[in-house]
Amino acid sequence: VLGVPASTVSAAVKTLVLAADLGGTFVFALSGALVGVSRRFDFFGIMLLALAAGSAGGISRDLLIGAVPPAAISDWRYLVASLGAGAITFFWHRAIERLRRPVQTFDAAGLALFAVTGSQKAFDYGLNPIAAVLLGMITGIGGGIVRDVLTSEIPTVLRAEIYAVAGLAGAAVVMIGNELHQPAGVGMLGGAVLCFSLRMVAIGRNWDLPKPDTRDGGS
Amino acid sequence: VLGVPASTVSAAVKTLVLAADLGGTFVFALSGALVGVSRRFDFFGIMLLALAAGSAGGISRDLLIGAVPPAAISDWRYLVASLGAGAITFFWHRAIERLRRPVQTFDAAGLALFAVTGSQKAFDYGLNPIAAVLLGMITGIGGGIVRDVLTSEIPTVLRAEIYAVAGLAGAAVVMIGNELHQPAGVGMLGGAVLCFSLRMVAIGRNWDLPKPDTRDGGS
Amino acid sequence: VLGVPASTVSAAVKTLVLAADLGGTFVFALSGALVGVSRRFDFFGIMLLALAAGSAGGISRDLLIGAVPPAAISDWRYLVASLGAGAITFFWHRAIERLRRPVQTFDAAGLALFAVTGSQKAFDYGLNPIAAVLLGMITGIGGGIVRDVLTSEIPTVLRAEIYAVAGLAGAAVVMIGNELHQPAGVGMLGGAVLCFSLRMVAIGRNWDLPKPDTRDGGS
Repeated sequence: VLGVPASTVSAAVKTLVLAADLGGTFVFALSGALVGVSRRFDFFGIMLLALAAGSAGGISRDLLIGAVPPAAISDWRYLVASLGAGAITFFWHRAIERLRRPVQTFDAAGLALFAVTGSQKAFDYGLNPIAAVLLGMITGIGGGIVRDVLTSEIPTVLRAEIYAVAGLAGAAVVMIGNELHQPAGVGMLGGAVLCFSLRMVAIGRNWDLPKPDTRDGGS
Repeated sequence: VLGVPASTVSAAVKTLVLAADLGGTFVFALSGALVGVSRRFDFFGIMLLALAAGSAGGISRDLLIGAVPPAAISDWRYLVASLGAGAITFFWHRAIERLRRPVQTFDAAGLALFAVTGSQKAFDYGLNPIAAVLLGMITGIGGGIVRDVLTSEIPTVLRAEIYAVAGLAGAAVVMIGNELHQPAGVGMLGGAVLCFSLRMVAIGRNWDLPKPDTRDGGS
Repeated sequence: VLGVPASTVSAAVKTLVLAADLGGTFVFALSGALVGVSRRFDFFGIMLLALAAGSAGGISRDLLIGAVPPAAISDWRYLVASLGAGAITFFWHRAIERLRRPVQTFDAAGLALFAVTGSQKAFDYGLNPIAAVLLGMITGIGGGIVRDVLTSEIPTVLRAEIYAVAGLAGAAVVMIGNELHQPAGVGMLGGAVLCFSLRMVAIGRNWDLPKPDTRDGGS
């Protein structure tokens, strides 16, 4: 299925990508389910939004690198991660909502985990490092975009605060680690921590990036 | 094109999948075109919404299992089904609208037909039965999601009433039939009837599934 | 990467497709960035909308014909085209906005360029001419649809005025040129000019196509 000889990608890297992928699926699914609760969707609407938010990034990545069927569909563990997150949210959403900004926090964790798995897996499939970084970003932002589009919101990634850039930074760390011949785990851990930190600081400080000057006058 | 040796999938199964696929395309296209009429889109907007709603489920399925180019694009009969439904709706939408809840009824028929073709075709491409059921559901709900997203609506599948679950049930019947070594036609017919019936009963009774308890207090 | 023996598609055609693809990416990215400015997105929101609008058509095409990873991801020149357009728009949007209807004009140019590259590349990948025309249309309308869906707008292509039909016409000219054994450049140039002209005339005259008759009475 994977189309890559087992010998070219070590089992350890595959296990790392799988673990980070499942973690990213779980937290993105939590963010999706919480949005579903806030919209008062029913049980199955919440489960489906969890599944869509949890799976969209990884499915996009796998389609774009030709890894079909995508792991999020062919491997039942992804399904368990998404639906488990959906069920937990359905039954215990009040506990989760006591966290500060839970949707954004889980979203940031998902962004970080998928940014690093996206770039690592793309690189393992033979993409060049720049393309792998771009694909890491796409993988990271995919879940949030699908969650927001399905609920008729303009995606968070398009509005204010550091988001796609945090994904790019996380993915870049993975590729730099590869170039420096570091073990994949080092780059993936470093990239995920950097990405998550950047995003959380941006949320906390509500950093605004420069906006186009649309006042009258000037040019 | 299909990438599967002809000998592993019988011609009869392929014909069944094709027939159900064309039927699903036609009814989903009717639902899309009717939405286009209600939004007062022009002729080509209606045709395009018919094409998008009719093709989205099958294209998603084919991309996810690696069957490219998707049948909905490479086989002109799908185009005829979509555009025929669009034209019929454009010229005779008043007759169609005399039906009770026509959008939902055609949508339910499309869900049922695509749920069974999605799981059967995915299984024929080597996916495991659980993944094939999931893919059946995705195939079934894809057309309605694209139709609703394109018209800035929150997808029906996320809101109230049994929908994705009906697709899952229909797809599961197909896989159970396979496991029991029944002819594919038996499973596909049974699955489609079950899915359509579940969905129509849900529409009729306006069954509501449990919603998260968001009243004050409790936990 | 391309999966097609070099000998079946001449280097000249590949260069033409690449040039038109990069041009289409650039102008669609301009249209996306301008929408981002009008929504007052920040710098990175604008860059991302430029990237999405510039890449969506080509990525859809490449996924649908099995050309993975898509050129828009694996080839850095596409990235430069999208992000260059985003940056230009961010810094000089006032100059661009002095043009008449700049979003629609750039959108029309992107439609024209992608309609011809979509049909030519699909044909080179072995799709039949009708499927190639359909794929040309999808490639052409993809960027605008993604741009509009991401900003919660009903896609322009669904509302009034000749749009998808212009894409179909442009793509059809490419296929007719091939059938008549004309050099690819002739068909692509002719198709792009026809498509762009049709669309601009439609914008200029605000041509409305017939709408379904939804007044009372009649049938």
